Amino acid sequence: MSKTIYFITSNKGKALEAKTKFSALGINIVQKNLGYPEIQADSLEDVALFGVLNVQKRFNQPFFLEDAGLFIDGLNGFPGVYSAYVYRTIGYLGILKLLEGIDFNKRKARFKSVIAYSEDGKKPVFFIGECHGKISVKALGENGFGFDPIFIPEGEEKTFAQMETKEKNRFSHRGKSLEKLINFFDNL
Amino acid sequence: MSKTIYFITSNKGKALEAKTKFSALGINIVQKNLGYPEIQADSLEDVALFGVLNVQKRFNQPFFLEDAGLFIDGLNGFPGVYSAYVYRTIGYLGILKLLEGIDFNKRKARFKSVIAYSEDGKKPVFFIGECHGKISVKALGENGFGFDPIFIPEGEEKTFAQMETKEKNRFSHRGKSLEKLINFFDNL
Repeated sequence: MSKTIYFITSNKGKALEAKTKFSALGINIVQKNLGYPEIQADSLEDVALFGVLNVQKRFNQPFFLEDAGLFIDGLNGFPGVYSAYVYRTIGYLGILKLLEGIDFNKRKARFKSVIAYSEDGKKPVFFIGECHGKISVKALGENGFGFDPIFIPEGEEKTFAQMETKEKNRFSHRGKSLEKLINFFDNL
Repeated sequence: MSKTIYFITSNKGKALEAKTKFSALGINIVQKNLGYPEIQADSLEDVALFGVLNVQKRFNQPFFLEDAGLFIDGLNGFPGVYSAYVYRTIGYLGILKLLEGIDFNKRKARFKSVIAYSEDGKKPVFFIGECHGKISVKALGENGFGFDPIFIPEGEEKTFAQMETKEKNRFSHRGKSLEKLINFFDNL
């Protein structure tokens, strides 16, 4: 019988992305919308760890959860752990305004994804995926979501929002952390 | 014997402010630096409630905790619950940049303080204090801390950072929430 791992998330898109990636390995990913508190912390790792400890109290199966954010060097890592909130309030136009007048080569940023996997109530194992790039000078493109219209991955000239999903996924931070989780199981 | 109430905070200044205000009532305020997780939430009340439920598990005496933030109307409430983080990353200069070009009378904002008081493991009682005002067009003044150099309380022309502590305290959001807590005990 194939192994089943639960992905604790309310996001169907993320669950589907993981399901697809894991299918080749014969591992069955099942979305579980349990809900868990996200704490205010300076790192995604701390947020994920707190979430895992909370879920462990209520759930005995192998599971993982994921947290992600956009970290801009010139803004001391802002919006970071609070990317979703910042997107809902000041949006990507707010980010562009904060960087106004700053030279393109000083607009370094990275998307980061942290997966925390836990089995048998043990301390979680972390898998990190990052996508380095720059914040564009103006918003471009209609695809994707969130900060995609202002993020240009390293070595490219288009924003994420100007790319098709398949092209964007080549760079995806979440894709990378999921790959690491897959390698972890593949080597067990 | 006089009643003792614990203020769960790591902030000595806040503890002293509460101690002073309560002394006339014969209530003894004792600072207790227990530490508790602050969740990511859209309201200070949700953050405080989660904190209270956490502290209740470890502490059986009457206690309160406090959370505060700056809410700017034109930025959909940003930086709000995350004011401390935003201050540490983009600072008040970031806020001024976000509001650049926006007319002074459209720069409405408020400081808000939420106190959650709990006794005997019961659901907490909330006390809210607010200070309405506007975000200045430029930073002025050297006193205070945090966003004080860019906040002008309603009916005034000076920023908090241009006022002496005593003058600023007339408007203080925390002062107001503490007054409400005092009235609560005074009427018991």
